[in-house]
Amino acid sequence: MLLGKVVGTLVATRKEASMEGLKFLVLRQMDIDGKDVSGTVVAADGVGAGVGEVVLYATGSAARQTTATHERPCDAVIMAIVDSWEVDGKEVFRK
Amino acid sequence: MLLGKVVGTLVATRKEASMEGLKFLVLRQMDIDGKDVSGTVVAADGVGAGVGEVVLYATGSAARQTTATHERPCDAVIMAIVDSWEVDGKEVFRK
Amino acid sequence: MLLGKVVGTLVATRKEASMEGLKFLVLRQMDIDGKDVSGTVVAADGVGAGVGEVVLYATGSAARQTTATHERPCDAVIMAIVDSWEVDGKEVFRK
Amino acid sequence: MLLGKVVGTLVATRKEASMEGLKFLVLRQMDIDGKDVSGTVVAADGVGAGVGEVVLYATGSAARQTTATHERPCDAVIMAIVDSWEVDGKEVFRK
Amino acid sequence: MLLGKVVGTLVATRKEASMEGLKFLVLRQMDIDGKDVSGTVVAADGVGAGVGEVVLYATGSAARQTTATHERPCDAVIMAIVDSWEVDGKEVFRK
Repeated sequence: MLLGKVVGTLVATRKEASMEGLKFLVLRQMDIDGKDVSGTVVAADGVGAGVGEVVLYATGSAARQTTATHERPCDAVIMAIVDSWEVDGKEVFRK
Repeated sequence: MLLGKVVGTLVATRKEASMEGLKFLVLRQMDIDGKDVSGTVVAADGVGAGVGEVVLYATGSAARQTTATHERPCDAVIMAIVDSWEVDGKEVFRK
Repeated sequence: MLLGKVVGTLVATRKEASMEGLKFLVLRQMDIDGKDVSGTVVAADGVGAGVGEVVLYATGSAARQTTATHERPCDAVIMAIVDSWEVDGKEVFRK
Repeated sequence: MLLGKVVGTLVATRKEASMEGLKFLVLRQMDIDGKDVSGTVVAADGVGAGVGEVVLYATGSAARQTTATHERPCDAVIMAIVDSWEVDGKEVFRK
Repeated sequence: MLLGKVVGTLVATRKEASMEGLKFLVLRQMDIDGKDVSGTVVAADGVGAGVGEVVLYATGSAARQTTATHERPCDAVIMAIVDSWEVDGKEVFRK
């Protein structure tokens, strides 16, 4: 899974019918040192995340293993909201 | 899902029989700040997108989760036409 | 799907039995402006492509969605021979 | 599979219900010469790895082929703890 | 599929039970011009490859389409030993 910060929301009224009702969140990818890295992605929200939160997201076929995204054309899903993590014995992030 | 701008169309008469009838669109990848990034891709059209529109596309096995692409050798599909998105509280794009 | 130019062929007599009879083609990846990009790949041929032709190839699990590659350890397949494409209203390539 | 060093742990109390009980470990990717490379990832632990250990992790749908991660929205799993490896006849790493 | 040179072996005694008996080989990725590129990977051996051989390997879910790796947490498998290939009419490699 990758780390991302939820920085915005996206609206798309014309879409695959199966995507109806899903919330799209805009993410900036972070590395484990808590720094932004260049990747960005739009993910479906599987856990009720909000703007400003740091999340774990899964990509590829794993992104369809949630109730909300099952058998949908969805390749990125937020599957956890991060409370904290540490690297080399130091806390890098706490919510 | 990734953001892309539809910049063109592609014609391929000799192809896997299962791809018959699918429309191929040429995309430039965009980041969430609305800028072009280096990636380009050819995607099947699942929503009737047109040249000039900004779209969300899904890659990998997710690209086969539409009626048009089910069980086809297709690894990228446009699954939504973007109306707008915002980043850090500012609107980056509106159709 | 990605664009590639078929630049060569590859011979491998010792291989997974299930790959018997498949033709391996050597591809240079192209971007939508028709320029070579750094990626290279070896793909199974699903459409009878020849050296010099510009093709669309699918990667990942999509590469097993052809009769030739079904349930094979194959992660890249040529699924169309490109006739032409255009970008920003101008024809970039014609066969 | 890729090589990574376990450098930390991650806590996420609000997550997909199916991820309950899984341990998330923070990895720095290594190359086969034993050097850090730029990629970082958060992986589920399938083998009881600890901070400081060098591990093999699998990504994509392979990450769901463990008892712990079966049908979970998980795209990276530690599936082995590395004892040693050698490159060009020289031992690069020994636990 | 990608080209790689087998440069070493890896030992991991503590691993997913389903990986028991599989041989892990260390690969340097090659491009179609026969040059090393920066990627490195650890792959399961599906064809009895040895150190020094140039091989084709498949990644992603394709890596589980061999008898040895079926339903295993394996995302890279050597599926052919390369005899030769040519690019632009010239032989780049012969075993």
